[in-house]
Amino acid sequence: MSGESEQSLPLEEQQVSKKAAKKQAAKEEKMRRRQEHALSSSAASLSIDEEDPHSHNYGDVPLLELKSCSDPDAGNWSRAINGKEWTEVFALTDKLKDTEVLIRGRVYTTRPVSKKMAFLVVREKGFTVQCLATINTEGISTQMVKFVAGLNRESIVDMIGVVSVPEKPITSTTQQVEIQLKKVYCVNKALPNLPINIEDAARSEVEIEKALQAGEQLVRVNQDTRLNFRVLDFRTPANQGIFRIQSQVGRIFRDFLYSEGFVEIHTPKLIAGSSEGGSAVFKLDYKGQPACLAQSPQLHKQMSICGDFGRVFEIGPVFRAEDSYTHRHLCEFTGLDVEMEIKKHYSEVMDIVDRLFVAMFDSLNENCKKELEAVGRQYPFEPLKYKPQTLQLTFEEGVQMLKDAGVEIDPLGDLNTESERKLGQLVLEKFGTEFYILHRYPLAVRPFYTMPCFDNPLYSNSFDVFIRGEEIISGAQRLHEPDVLTERAKTCGIDVNTISTYIDSFRYGAPPHGGFGVGLERVVMLFCGLNNIRKTSLFPRDPLRIAP
Amino acid sequence: MSGESEQSLPLEEQQVSKKAAKKQAAKEEKMRRRQEHALSSSAASLSIDEEDPHSHNYGDVPLLELKSCSDPDAGNWSRAINGKEWTEVFALTDKLKDTEVLIRGRVYTTRPVSKKMAFLVVREKGFTVQCLATINTEGISTQMVKFVAGLNRESIVDMIGVVSVPEKPITSTTQQVEIQLKKVYCVNKALPNLPINIEDAARSEVEIEKALQAGEQLVRVNQDTRLNFRVLDFRTPANQGIFRIQSQVGRIFRDFLYSEGFVEIHTPKLIAGSSEGGSAVFKLDYKGQPACLAQSPQLHKQMSICGDFGRVFEIGPVFRAEDSYTHRHLCEFTGLDVEMEIKKHYSEVMDIVDRLFVAMFDSLNENCKKELEAVGRQYPFEPLKYKPQTLQLTFEEGVQMLKDAGVEIDPLGDLNTESERKLGQLVLEKFGTEFYILHRYPLAVRPFYTMPCFDNPLYSNSFDVFIRGEEIISGAQRLHEPDVLTERAKTCGIDVNTISTYIDSFRYGAPPHGGFGVGLERVVMLFCGLNNIRKTSLFPRDPLRIAP
Repeated sequence: MSGESEQSLPLEEQQVSKKAAKKQAAKEEKMRRRQEHALSSSAASLSIDEEDPHSHNYGDVPLLELKSCSDPDAGNWSRAINGKEWTEVFALTDKLKDTEVLIRGRVYTTRPVSKKMAFLVVREKGFTVQCLATINTEGISTQMVKFVAGLNRESIVDMIGVVSVPEKPITSTTQQVEIQLKKVYCVNKALPNLPINIEDAARSEVEIEKALQAGEQLVRVNQDTRLNFRVLDFRTPANQGIFRIQSQVGRIFRDFLYSEGFVEIHTPKLIAGSSEGGSAVFKLDYKGQPACLAQSPQLHKQMSICGDFGRVFEIGPVFRAEDSYTHRHLCEFTGLDVEMEIKKHYSEVMDIVDRLFVAMFDSLNENCKKELEAVGRQYPFEPLKYKPQTLQLTFEEGVQMLKDAGVEIDPLGDLNTESERKLGQLVLEKFGTEFYILHRYPLAVRPFYTMPCFDNPLYSNSFDVFIRGEEIISGAQRLHEPDVLTERAKTCGIDVNTISTYIDSFRYGAPPHGGFGVGLERVVMLFCGLNNIRKTSLFPRDPLRIAP
Repeated sequence: MSGESEQSLPLEEQQVSKKAAKKQAAKEEKMRRRQEHALSSSAASLSIDEEDPHSHNYGDVPLLELKSCSDPDAGNWSRAINGKEWTEVFALTDKLKDTEVLIRGRVYTTRPVSKKMAFLVVREKGFTVQCLATINTEGISTQMVKFVAGLNRESIVDMIGVVSVPEKPITSTTQQVEIQLKKVYCVNKALPNLPINIEDAARSEVEIEKALQAGEQLVRVNQDTRLNFRVLDFRTPANQGIFRIQSQVGRIFRDFLYSEGFVEIHTPKLIAGSSEGGSAVFKLDYKGQPACLAQSPQLHKQMSICGDFGRVFEIGPVFRAEDSYTHRHLCEFTGLDVEMEIKKHYSEVMDIVDRLFVAMFDSLNENCKKELEAVGRQYPFEPLKYKPQTLQLTFEEGVQMLKDAGVEIDPLGDLNTESERKLGQLVLEKFGTEFYILHRYPLAVRPFYTMPCFDNPLYSNSFDVFIRGEEIISGAQRLHEPDVLTERAKTCGIDVNTISTYIDSFRYGAPPHGGFGVGLERVVMLFCGLNNIRKTSLFPRDPLRIAP
């Protein structure tokens, strides 16, 4: 057994391990003292019950024995599992009947039946399996049953046991087999009283309401508690789903753009000056110079286009020091940014948006079924309604639709959250889609670098994109002529000296171009019909929160 | 022709365009005034020569005519190219002989032969083609020849012409055809005197030296000038190659990790407190609270592992306020970070490093041949020597190799840049590889969260990875036991109150885990044998530079 283990280690390590063993012998005393200083010895003591002849089959694993097993004398636990294959909980099926397996997982629940028998449900990556410790199994003592029954929830345990298939289906676990335990070691002990119980955190509002009607008050974990103990909150099936979906959104975004000839760039987040042509920036001191954090990669991605990269994208943090206390604003979020040369028309950019997002939604529905189900179990939602080719409406058409529905808005002003929602409803009723592009926005409500419409400079070659009545994307063709750009900046009240390098970039020959920016957290939130962007940000930052 | 163009536009836009046209008529006078206010009218005037009957075949395109062509009366130029297919310069081959093509590119050089004839070389994505304007072609005037000859370098031009195949090969361009020009429009005019000449910026040291020996002094563009005018510097073939290679590194990194079951995460860059357990941080005010920029995603990626994501990675900016004025340090760089559960041994992490980077190097050599050649033409380098399975040496072995070569270093200290380089040389001589892993570093030189070795707590389960004698990766198994972690933090002089949330993450059951961090810019720099990290950062940030 130890031979197998040694072969799996790099040759160099074995040699040194042997060399080291010799050298170590002489220095042992000195080492021990240094070791005691370096490590808390309390955590490294195995809780062996001297009166139990089977005490080697269970217990808390001391920290240092988790390390290399190149030394066959490193400890009983290390030796016992050397060279064995690990089996993941999801792979525990009746095909493995009567096989001995080695598993690592979290204690989900324990249930002592008697002094002679205890159940243990273990969870790994959302899959659960029931394990049984009984003194009917050889080598299992009542002390071990007690140890198993007393394991703290969420502790990490390593187990060796034999797979059996019970006659009746097990309703409380995902896996339909039972593990007859032979050895159980606690690798990392959780606190006995956790600030959040995973079962509570995973509960849906529907369940809570239903229980309430039946006279039972179930625990509801509020948003702040979840975020304060995010590490526990992450472990709910819904959160496991949300962040795996988020990862997929990034993956699909990139894969689509790579296939269209885009180059990934990384623009700086540290920007000289204290304004970046706008307010609401985080300011800082950069080696004695005033600096701020980038509110978007806008200027640098356009400069990359002027540098002949043709088509670029970036995925990176975006910083907004705004005092927005809404369900959809964060002070730091992940921006998905695109910029590209265009030949003639800003519809070339909208065409990328159309195909990219339709491909994304198709892929999520196809490849994230399990994750979407997990999210939906806790936060029920209807699948997003979208068309194979994305609906495009002009701003003027949108205004008219609102007007026809009795909502009067300034035809050259911006939509507010309320009118965006209303328009979303009207579009859904009329066109049967919850994903659409609204373009030709009034120039006055867009950034200074936006290209006006050729036929009417009160409008612009710009667009927003909506999911379920909320904006997720903003895009436009940009001004690529430095003098016009300068004029527009001045008109918008921007000190052109602070953006002179940016403006100068267009003096060396600049191709017509456009692009867009997407908020990753918003895409996930709205695709999954969630009600708060804090649910789709790993460690959200808002005006009241900068921890954990 | 205009019909074709209209069909390619969204239906909505056509309708509104017509509606708008009617409304516009009444408001025309009002609009014109608003338009004059919104835009600099000087940039929107076509430079038509009234005395030339062929003046519609060339000229500067006014800004507003680049927009939508849904209005067939938007201008001669717009109508002329409606519905035509664009041909990229790289696609201009003898297969297109006698075909009329529409091209957009940059003016690379112009060469007037006489009043009747001028050559124009145009560049697109690194490919160049020669174009000829001659009055022998119908519709071409001497004024047009003059216009072509007078185009500023780097200006963006749209051209219509017929492909011809000259008898003699053209040595000065990549494409072996010539375009007989019919129409030439300047879409965006570059300044007549550019701060950097692309030819100068693209020149290799070898060329400069060779010319010098022949008595000719060629322009050498220094690093600071390049970075000040980065938009021009980007346009050299070497830089086009470097940043396309960088994009590929990110792509291969992600694809490999996705295929191994990793989840991409985005951790916050805004961190509470003013130290993050270290010095050299950028501090800022976060809504009245002290905050700083993340020096690495270390703590949050570990917390994600405690949150059961199993295996995670992140690509994002990393901020270091260090006063390092070396060829390999930046104040902001792109970190490629990995963190993963481990079953037994930190070699599981090194195994990912090994397979990931070997796959990366293989893929770069296979799929970025053109880009690597372009880099090598300006900055000659030898292809990286690496093995199908990455060499692993222990720190002790490394120290011994240095000792054998007469270099004495502290066996429990860190390697300095010089000894790293020396060891790189020795490893290359002995093992024939420039890429290797050095592991079991002395604990004292690693961060407080590093796991000590089970057999000797003076060493640690950590590793660095080297390319061409320089460190690119740092990794380790982490301490997952909160009390030991606290002890180690104290020993290392860290105020544990500032990292209490991090330490608490391990109190709710924490799996053994490890990971590593890579500097993207260093990978590209060292793979391509470049001498300065500023060459592989899009817009580098160092203690003396925060612009552009």
